[in-house]
Amino acid sequence: MTFKNKLAHIQQQKQSLLCVGLDPDPAKLPHALSDIPSLPDRLRAFNKAIITATAPYASAFKINFAFYEALGTEGWKVLEETVALLPDDVVSIADAKRGDIGNSARFYAQSIFEHLGFDCCTVSPYMGKDSYAPFLNYPGKLTFILGRTSNPGAADLQEKRVGDSYLFEILSRQLADLPTAERDCAGLVVGATSEEALSKIRSIVPGMPFLIPGVGAQGGDPEAVVRASFDELGSVLINSSRGIIFAGNDADYADKAAEAADQLRSTLWQASGI
Amino acid sequence: MTFKNKLAHIQQQKQSLLCVGLDPDPAKLPHALSDIPSLPDRLRAFNKAIITATAPYASAFKINFAFYEALGTEGWKVLEETVALLPDDVVSIADAKRGDIGNSARFYAQSIFEHLGFDCCTVSPYMGKDSYAPFLNYPGKLTFILGRTSNPGAADLQEKRVGDSYLFEILSRQLADLPTAERDCAGLVVGATSEEALSKIRSIVPGMPFLIPGVGAQGGDPEAVVRASFDELGSVLINSSRGIIFAGNDADYADKAAEAADQLRSTLWQASGI
Repeated sequence: MTFKNKLAHIQQQKQSLLCVGLDPDPAKLPHALSDIPSLPDRLRAFNKAIITATAPYASAFKINFAFYEALGTEGWKVLEETVALLPDDVVSIADAKRGDIGNSARFYAQSIFEHLGFDCCTVSPYMGKDSYAPFLNYPGKLTFILGRTSNPGAADLQEKRVGDSYLFEILSRQLADLPTAERDCAGLVVGATSEEALSKIRSIVPGMPFLIPGVGAQGGDPEAVVRASFDELGSVLINSSRGIIFAGNDADYADKAAEAADQLRSTLWQASGI
Repeated sequence: MTFKNKLAHIQQQKQSLLCVGLDPDPAKLPHALSDIPSLPDRLRAFNKAIITATAPYASAFKINFAFYEALGTEGWKVLEETVALLPDDVVSIADAKRGDIGNSARFYAQSIFEHLGFDCCTVSPYMGKDSYAPFLNYPGKLTFILGRTSNPGAADLQEKRVGDSYLFEILSRQLADLPTAERDCAGLVVGATSEEALSKIRSIVPGMPFLIPGVGAQGGDPEAVVRASFDELGSVLINSSRGIIFAGNDADYADKAAEAADQLRSTLWQASGI
């Protein structure tokens, strides 16, 4: 089964295009956890409660490596434990944005797909095809390559004009031209903050899975984003991190996260028109 | 003291522009270590012997995170231990090629500069200025931003033409235009495999430190590379990994690595004309 078929099945079952981003910024953890003295233990308790509460509404969880690596080896341990907590009926995304030459890329892919056992990861394409190709050699897994990101800096390189095209369109065509086996393992990260980019990229790679960050805190409008990007189940995952996981600050923070997740799930599902 | 002054001082003392890359590919470790049953312990023994043997000839060591992350938490432990082994008279480079939006970038910078205590790191610029800016807020440290890399895939995006310029020239100008405090913390990764790129980038950012991979195994000619890039002490670090650390396979592998390091050191130093 391709990754996309697996994701489509989960999305249909849960009526959800939602990906919950586990970005546990220590400064934003709920006050309710402040009596746990060790930071790694606070992260463990937080992640467990958030995963349990929001999993019914999510088709995916995305783990942002930055927040774990900031704690070094101990953080990696929390990361490994967090992946293991994810239920079977979600897909797991390693938001690690690796990108290196072939030999190193092979080891990063091994770390994420084999050692940690993630279903998906994010990769930066600046070094070109041979830097992401090793990630596309895992049938049934998926690699989201950064296309047009949601941050202001997206304009600095991604939106430079190469002839009549934006650089992100050049990249998208390179992905469209991959051999089928590799293309089945490729997706794109496209930020919610540019509907123009979403539409342009979608027209180049119809059906290819998009991971879409930037709704909520970063300003992307959920309904407009679904309209500009959705073409069938398995083709769109919309991520929200802060807007869900930090929805509450008190003892009921996990309930508040569940409410926020269900609300966004419902908005997105309705916008898809399924 | 800026990072560049510190590096210039070390380079003068050791008469060395050489950076030794610690890329301990498990498949290539010397046979002499095969009686150590655990892979992490083999890496520990290997790194310790290589660092001790080659440090007299190196002004820097570069640690490629891919090879450590492939072992998960245990690999991160080896990585932390390896940084701690580096002597005071070299600079340490985290070859991690991170690159994410501002908030995440801040945590990656914290991981590399504060938790692990590296002097330098590598960062991918695909997401633009706000993705590398948090790394440039560490006075005395240096961040090498990927400019024109040494792999074949460099042609896929980095060498696209934007008006009259290559994309890597656009990026280089963005770095040249940084405010002084940030520019003092910025360097570029420029591969040894394109002397044209080295010369072009050097003319845009005179004096800015370059980390240059790709001599040896990847085919770059050491002397030509120094001629195209060197302008003063502190401005050029030339990395060799496989050609040095895997120079020998038997019990004398560390001596062989030392010989290879001293030989390349001498070639590079002579080419600099100092």
